[in-house]
Amino acid sequence: MAPKTQEPQIVSVTDLPSAQAKWVGLKKIDFVDQTGTPRSWEIAVRKTTSKSGVDAVAMGNIFVHPLKPPSTMLVIQYRPPIGKYTIEWPAGLIDENETPEEAAVREMKEETGYEGKILNTGPVLSSDPGMTNATLKLVMIEVKLGEQEDMMPDQKLDEGELIERVMVPLSELYDRLIEYSKKDNFMVAGKLFYFAAGMHFAKHGGYI
Amino acid sequence: MAPKTQEPQIVSVTDLPSAQAKWVGLKKIDFVDQTGTPRSWEIAVRKTTSKSGVDAVAMGNIFVHPLKPPSTMLVIQYRPPIGKYTIEWPAGLIDENETPEEAAVREMKEETGYEGKILNTGPVLSSDPGMTNATLKLVMIEVKLGEQEDMMPDQKLDEGELIERVMVPLSELYDRLIEYSKKDNFMVAGKLFYFAAGMHFAKHGGYI
Repeated sequence: MAPKTQEPQIVSVTDLPSAQAKWVGLKKIDFVDQTGTPRSWEIAVRKTTSKSGVDAVAMGNIFVHPLKPPSTMLVIQYRPPIGKYTIEWPAGLIDENETPEEAAVREMKEETGYEGKILNTGPVLSSDPGMTNATLKLVMIEVKLGEQEDMMPDQKLDEGELIERVMVPLSELYDRLIEYSKKDNFMVAGKLFYFAAGMHFAKHGGYI
Repeated sequence: MAPKTQEPQIVSVTDLPSAQAKWVGLKKIDFVDQTGTPRSWEIAVRKTTSKSGVDAVAMGNIFVHPLKPPSTMLVIQYRPPIGKYTIEWPAGLIDENETPEEAAVREMKEETGYEGKILNTGPVLSSDPGMTNATLKLVMIEVKLGEQEDMMPDQKLDEGELIERVMVPLSELYDRLIEYSKKDNFMVAGKLFYFAAGMHFAKHGGYI
């Protein structure tokens, strides 16, 4: 991985004609609603949906160590769309002809360096149903560490990917995300925060 | 609300030139990464971001009733971007000059008919950080019901909005979302599922 020499910087943000875009596009959907009324809706689409019919996987990961509290690995990377560093779970697009599970194991290895065991694959979910047709699956992965396994293995990042890893005890996840979101240059990814909020609510809400 | 007379149907999906789109657009971001290398990134943007700097709010709601288990109200609506009915928490865009909290109370009332008390407003979150600059806040709202309060109040939907409401005990939320996602015409929204998965994991995972 090339060394970090400076803070990333946005040089320009320009309108992009649909026809010139390689990764994303705009579509207009004309439809007839439940009352028989013709309507239309504008959406953003990925131009890369895999044959599996799902765009992406995210890896809800749990690291189990004989002497340490169960933890999860978060990835921090500069995200040009928001001009900040985001806190997320490892995730990635599913390649052509790849299953969501294969993509989960591959992306987990690339972004974190670790191999894990899939505990559970969730249903196909809508990423942002008012705005896009993009979909994803949440794959829960467990990584078992040995007592001496304290050094993080090398990542296998694509050229140009710069991803930092941070291990957080699950019991502190919610509070740590709140802390990150108070820093100027950081933003927490919505779905990760919702998972942490669900855990927090189950523990402290007194409702269940 | 106009009566439902038929299943919604998509008539056509056509390419939409950026310049003709009213709600969404495409941008190209040119940036210099941490190693000093010039790169670019394509993103989808909303053309409607409010002055509060946040696009949307979602209402994580808890209904408390003296005789019934604590429950949450989900909204089901036809979403043209995915051509299915989605299961979501009530949510909406923040209007110009409105705070996220004001938008949360307004949208909660419009989509569910209920007024609630805000328990907590979360940090600004990235909706889908690889694809868009869209942001949201999760606002937790509690609605206290009286013993006799069994009829749902009228919604205050915008023209063309058709939203069904379903009340689910919080302890059954995860299983109910899994059930919905097995039906052909339904898809669960990612963020709601992550919250439910976090609750489920905290209760059954044995990790915390």
